[in-house]
Amino acid sequence: MTARAIAEEVIDLSGIRAAVDQVLEEFLAGKARSAGSGPLADFVDVVRGMLRAGGKRVRPVLCVCGWHAAGGGARLDEVLRAAASLELFHTFALIHDDVIDGSDTRRGMPTAHRIFQAGREGEAGGEEAARFGTGSAILLGDLTLVWSYELLAGPGLAPASDRVLGDVLGAMRTEATLGQYLDLRASGQLDADLEGAMEIVRYKTAKYTIERPLHVGAVLAGAGSRLLEACTAYALPVGEAFQLRDDLLGVFGQPGATGKSDLDDLRAGKRTPLVAVAMQRAGAGQRMTLTTLLGQPGLGPHEAAAIRSILEETGARAAVEEMIAVRYRQALRSLDLSGFPAPVVTALRDIAHRVTARSS
Amino acid sequence: MTARAIAEEVIDLSGIRAAVDQVLEEFLAGKARSAGSGPLADFVDVVRGMLRAGGKRVRPVLCVCGWHAAGGGARLDEVLRAAASLELFHTFALIHDDVIDGSDTRRGMPTAHRIFQAGREGEAGGEEAARFGTGSAILLGDLTLVWSYELLAGPGLAPASDRVLGDVLGAMRTEATLGQYLDLRASGQLDADLEGAMEIVRYKTAKYTIERPLHVGAVLAGAGSRLLEACTAYALPVGEAFQLRDDLLGVFGQPGATGKSDLDDLRAGKRTPLVAVAMQRAGAGQRMTLTTLLGQPGLGPHEAAAIRSILEETGARAAVEEMIAVRYRQALRSLDLSGFPAPVVTALRDIAHRVTARSS
Repeated sequence: MTARAIAEEVIDLSGIRAAVDQVLEEFLAGKARSAGSGPLADFVDVVRGMLRAGGKRVRPVLCVCGWHAAGGGARLDEVLRAAASLELFHTFALIHDDVIDGSDTRRGMPTAHRIFQAGREGEAGGEEAARFGTGSAILLGDLTLVWSYELLAGPGLAPASDRVLGDVLGAMRTEATLGQYLDLRASGQLDADLEGAMEIVRYKTAKYTIERPLHVGAVLAGAGSRLLEACTAYALPVGEAFQLRDDLLGVFGQPGATGKSDLDDLRAGKRTPLVAVAMQRAGAGQRMTLTTLLGQPGLGPHEAAAIRSILEETGARAAVEEMIAVRYRQALRSLDLSGFPAPVVTALRDIAHRVTARSS
Repeated sequence: MTARAIAEEVIDLSGIRAAVDQVLEEFLAGKARSAGSGPLADFVDVVRGMLRAGGKRVRPVLCVCGWHAAGGGARLDEVLRAAASLELFHTFALIHDDVIDGSDTRRGMPTAHRIFQAGREGEAGGEEAARFGTGSAILLGDLTLVWSYELLAGPGLAPASDRVLGDVLGAMRTEATLGQYLDLRASGQLDADLEGAMEIVRYKTAKYTIERPLHVGAVLAGAGSRLLEACTAYALPVGEAFQLRDDLLGVFGQPGATGKSDLDDLRAGKRTPLVAVAMQRAGAGQRMTLTTLLGQPGLGPHEAAAIRSILEETGARAAVEEMIAVRYRQALRSLDLSGFPAPVVTALRDIAHRVTARSS
């Protein structure tokens, strides 16, 4: 698919998604076979369910785009496996993230820890079932991380690229974990520090979700430092815009479309740029309301509506929309200067539009 | 050290421990340098603290013994790095295990999640601090797992051994995770099924702690399947005995010596062979007491004493001591038939004695 598509001057993004999903399905089918009816079967089922329930496959698609940006090559199977491995890594990150945030739903389905918890509720008390759910999901996440390495280390990865590839992936894994930690450490510490909030966005999303996947693909096609820098110039504004959109959807999105609760971020008291701007602009009464309500685990729809009003009235929502628009334009300009092949520019322009204008 | 020691017909076990600790210290010193005063510094500090607080280094020592058993070789640095990587993997497993079990102490120190929690307690409420502690420790464990791969993938690992080594390590990581899951799933499900309890022991400890470390070292020295089988013949009985001793220490040990609470296992309602034997032999009244008390999160010293009495009176404690003795003898017999070099046999005999007769 992709090899032909690039010859036709179009990168087939949905074809990439389908090819990556096939790699993932085959990998998990192998795990299911070796699991039989043993305890591993429970784990395979949950991971499969999460992947089948949806997801935009942003990271795999960008990985393959990075590969084309650097000229691609004969080893399409290699980059597809790397792309699928990034998706498994992301699945691990989501499983643990949901445990840490205590989220109930993801992609419109119960989160992993809630699935394990529900399986236990008949036989045990509520608290014990919750403990079992959390523990099982921690272990499931661990094994999914191990699988992401295993899928990557298949027979085809060229030894020559191993060292550079290892460095890029190592940076990605560290940044993803530290980004989550910064996010967690800042939660509940409500302030007007927009720069601090943007630093979390850069670690947690811009580098992990956009820059590193492009780099992984590019390195597999033998990219040098100039090409990697061109990827970065595109990735950081798009990544920041992606997370800023995510923050808006977390508060103003339709749960039916996002697959996530529109209360979780408010309950967690996430220190997003959206909230930082609102705190900067809020009057004394508004600031008091934000400080009192944000981060309350028991916050309900009524309190959420009050917070949303303040985010609107202070102009914080509009300001974040403008930050997204600025970064979108910056990403498009970087593509004009990138020197990437035309079909890659078209695809990355499309992706920049989708991730910044999305509603789910 | 070790290369000279083997020439002198003695494997210097404490020399191995010191050499592995040096590899770990250097690796973490590199991480500390790149962390500066950033958020990564918190993580490096906790892992360093855990490693410095103690630990028997059973897995690294066995890894180097497995290497000598297969004839060793010139690449001592390679096997030391693999051995250190096993210890980092184990550190990851302990961090998550303590979160899952809600344990307060490990090696006489607060567990990772309690350290993070304590750092937050001044500024946040008790529940929020606990949530922050749990979340941070999950992320710290994730990064420590990533580090265990990174340490292993240093410049020296011979490409020829990569595939077989990968298979052994993959099996180890899967078995460790599934063993924990089986343990968790069985907790609180009190019954007299000794065979089920022994299956958990085999996954969780015999394979993970003894067999796979020996295999990793042996594979690095180019071992064939016969030598790997000789490792297994020694490892499984020693590993079972190791865990049975651990179970006894978890209930009857001195917290001052073990570094762990003597209530945690009872509170978690761990389905150990010790408990299974007691349930088999208990009278109706004793069984009622066990069923009522085991697995109570609020269980105190008084209830623990009642359980200990029943474990004594039913003869369960003595029966488990006998199971340990049988396995110890079995391990020694397997060494006589192993064909391992004499210094390796001496070292493994010493290890079998230490892990089965230990008090900490």
